[in-house]
Order: sequence, then C-alpha cells, then structure tokens
Amino acid sequence: METFFSFLQRRVDDCSSLLCVGLDPHISDLKEPTAASALTFCLTLIQQTSRYAAAFKPNAAFFESFGAAGWDALKQVIEAIQNESNRLGSLIPVILDAKRGDISSTAEAYAKSAFETLGAHCITLSPYLGKDSIDPFLNDPEKGVFLLCKTSNAGSGDLQDLIVTIDDRPQTMINGQSSAVYLYEHVAKLAQKWNVKNNIGLVVGATHLEAMQRIRQAAPDLWFLAPGVGAQGAEIESVLRAGLRSDRSGVLIPVSRGISRAENPAQAAAKLRDEILAARNL
Amino acid sequence: METFFSFLQRRVDDCSSLLCVGLDPHISDLKEPTAASALTFCLTLIQQTSRYAAAFKPNAAFFESFGAAGWDALKQVIEAIQNESNRLGSLIPVILDAKRGDISSTAEAYAKSAFETLGAHCITLSPYLGKDSIDPFLNDPEKGVFLLCKTSNAGSGDLQDLIVTIDDRPQTMINGQSSAVYLYEHVAKLAQKWNVKNNIGLVVGATHLEAMQRIRQAAPDLWFLAPGVGAQGAEIESVLRAGLRSDRSGVLIPVSRGISRAENPAQAAAKLRDEILAARNL
Repeated sequence: METFFSFLQRRVDDCSSLLCVGLDPHISDLKEPTAASALTFCLTLIQQTSRYAAAFKPNAAFFESFGAAGWDALKQVIEAIQNESNRLGSLIPVILDAKRGDISSTAEAYAKSAFETLGAHCITLSPYLGKDSIDPFLNDPEKGVFLLCKTSNAGSGDLQDLIVTIDDRPQTMINGQSSAVYLYEHVAKLAQKWNVKNNIGLVVGATHLEAMQRIRQAAPDLWFLAPGVGAQGAEIESVLRAGLRSDRSGVLIPVSRGISRAENPAQAAAKLRDEILAARNL
Repeated sequence: METFFSFLQRRVDDCSSLLCVGLDPHISDLKEPTAASALTFCLTLIQQTSRYAAAFKPNAAFFESFGAAGWDALKQVIEAIQNESNRLGSLIPVILDAKRGDISSTAEAYAKSAFETLGAHCITLSPYLGKDSIDPFLNDPEKGVFLLCKTSNAGSGDLQDLIVTIDDRPQTMINGQSSAVYLYEHVAKLAQKWNVKNNIGLVVGATHLEAMQRIRQAAPDLWFLAPGVGAQGAEIESVLRAGLRSDRSGVLIPVSRGISRAENPAQAAAKLRDEILAARNL
C-alpha cells in the first residue's frame, strides 16, 4: 500500500538526499513586503534547489501574514512544486508547516484546507489535544502528519521536558536502571502506537541530541523532521548519529535560511545534500 | 492601563453577558459551499446576536478551507464586528479561534496575521512549545491570548491528564492531603505566572467540571473560555459554579451551532444571555 512515508522514501532514494528545503518568505528577505514578492522568492528557490530536495516545507505563517493574497501565493507555490516533480519525474512531497491542532469538524476543515484546497501531502500538528484531534488528518494513508514531539526552541522544556507518571509510576526501568519518562517521550510512544497506516512522523529538534536518542528508542519506526541545523547550530553528523533508524533513513533535515540566504542557493543545497549523504554513510 | 481583558470586562458589563458567539461557517450550514455564502452566514449571525455578545469567536478553519476567498471573508467578518461595535458604541472583542503555536519569527508572523492583517483582538494558542512561543503574541497588552489548557474533547486526556512531576515530586500536598498535579493544572499555573500584562486566559472545556475547579484554584485571576455548552451537553449553571472567579466574572461561554441552527438565532442568543446572567447571580 502506498502511504505518505513510502512516497517520501522513494523521493529520498531518487535524489539521495534527506534535505528538506524550507520555504520561509520572511519579509526581511523579500524585495518588497508583498505576497507577489513572497511568491517570486519561493518559485526561484524551488527551481534552484529541487534536484537536492527530498521534500519542500512551506511555512504557512509567512503566507498568512499577507492575508488572502498570501494564501493564493501559497497555493501557487505548492502547484509549482508539483510541476517541478512532473518535470523531474519524481514526486517531491510538500510538508505544510502549519502546526495546527483542533477537534472534530474543525480538524476536518483544517485537513481539507491543507490536503484538498492547498494540495499539500503532509502537515505539522500539535499533539496537545490528543488522538481524536489527529485522526481527521490520517484517513488517507497517502497524506501524512508530523506531530510536534520535542521542539528546537529554548522554551520547549516548559511542557515537553516534564516527567510524567505512566502506569502510576513517575519512573520506569530500562535495562535494570530507573529512568524517568518525559512528556516528549510519551508523545513519541503514543505516535509509534498510533502509526498503523505509516503516515505519522515526529518533529524532533536537532538541538536536543539526548532527547532525540530517547525518542528514537521510543519510536524506532517513525520518521523525524529535525529542525535546528544551520541557524540554530546543530551539526548534521551528530543529528544523524542520534536520529537515524536502523535502516539509515528516517530523518529529514529542514534548512531554510541556510539555503535562501546563501550567495548561491543551488550550491548551498547541493553541499548540504552531500554533507548529509556522507554522514548517513558513516 | 488598558488590556485585552479590561476591554472584555467592559463589554461584559455593557451587555450583561458572558456569552461568546461562535462564528463557525460549517459547509453543511451554508446555502452554497462558497466563501461568499460563509460570509453571508456570519454577517447575518452578527446582526442577529451582537446585542447579546460579550465577544465573537470566528473559527479560522472554516474560512481557511475556502482558500484565499475564505481568508478575505474572514477579514470582512472581523470588519463587520468592528462596524457593529461602533454602531452599538461598545467594543465587542474578536477572539480568533486558530489554535496556532510556533516559535520566534514564525510566531511573530502569526501574531501579525491575527492582530494586524485580520484585526482580531485575541487568538487561541497551544501551549505545547512553551513560553517563548507565546511571547510574540503578548507584546501589546491590548491584544490577548487564550491558551489551551484542558480541552472539551474525549482525547484531551491523552496528554492533558498526565500526572507530572514538579519539584521532583509527582504528588503535592493540598490541605494536608496528597494530590497529583495534572499537566493541564501545570499549564494553568504557568499561565497565571506568565500573565503579567493581563492578556492571558485559558481554554477550559465545560465538559470537565472537576478539572475546571482545579484550574480555577491554580489560576484564580485568569479568564476562561469554556466550550462545551449546548452540543457537547455541559450545563451553564454547573459550568459557572465551577469556573467563576470570586468577582463572579472570568468565564466566557462560547456557543456556535446552539445559536446558528436555532429557528430564531436572536432569540436563542437572548435566552442564553439570560440563562447565563441568572446562573451568574445565584
């Protein structure tokens, strides 16, 4: 059965890359503070980097801030990626970075918005509202989600690092040693359990390597989307060492400004692809 | 100093109401599945209910699912509420129900989108990413947020009801009795602490009254947005008994379909306003 992650794996194999090119049209990076300029910025970046992209990740916020015109630009960006996929003869999945999270008919409307109106293949979601807030996004196995698990920011510890009590115990025994279960670890275990259609992955910040190792133990099968390389200082080799699955796949490394602000974005993407490939083969 | 919640309290006093009218243009309730029809639906509802509304709460998802045209409709809905406020001579705050949650420049873009591009006064947010994901929405005290704390859905327990360890203890002592701290309770305590500008409130499902009581203890000063009355079966009197602050205010009761699907929405809103007023004075 085809699923979102079987599509992603095929693209990873086609382009020998785990690089996910982020499309973040920050106003400060645009020629003019307009949706048209955001569109041009993204279309140029797509053309320059598609050969090296295992996936593209447009960030909804930067389009939303332009209102209706921004929403139109976002739709055109996703169409352009589909055209580029057709040209290359290899489907490049589009992960809409939107971090939505709501319930019942509202969640259904968000799923419709992302997958039907916009045509994205995958969306990032918050897990805070629980399983029934995720379900409406999982119906079609060819559409996927990345659930926030352990995020790359400093404040991620406020909730995600809390020690939780599972089965009436705040501690669990691993290899005879007592070990706490963090909230992020519990989210990883839930996601591993919920992933019956192979369309759930996790957002795991590349800035927290110990957490990433624990999450890999808790969710041996899941794909990670691991932001933090570049601007936030995480190193590719360390991230892959902590996060890769036993099949040497399963980690997608999103980079935005590290590519878009480079003098030559195509070259920057090629270099990142090669660095990732080298580290993956270590 | 004027803050979001001082505006809200003034409106509550002006209209003697704690009713928040939800604007959820479900496709199944529209004459046609178009943004134009969603706009008409909302404009009619605003005219019919504004006298009884302490606040309006448009739900972003139902607009987003129409793409750019839906985004335009949402902006016009918010403008219509502002016009209605001017007509009544009493500002009716607009709470954008969007449940966003992201970090740094992305959070700034979402704040810009909600408060500047759309002109909303308040937004619902997820707390999962921690304090630094909330901060960009708090800069202007006249703009507010409601943080998800304990939501009304069945799956809310998956994360929110986990017992967390605070100060190395999974239990705390209250009045000499041992008591667990739930994740939602910890979120409430954090929000109470973070609320230095009087612009943070909490989403507390009206379907979980025991949780609501605990949250009121943890956050004695904060406003609650308490969904679950009507369709989900919560009763106004019980909700206010569990949630009101010592000043008999501090709970906003959102109702959507209970008003929009009534034969006479104006009458339904008036009746809800009166029921809430009666229960508040008990």
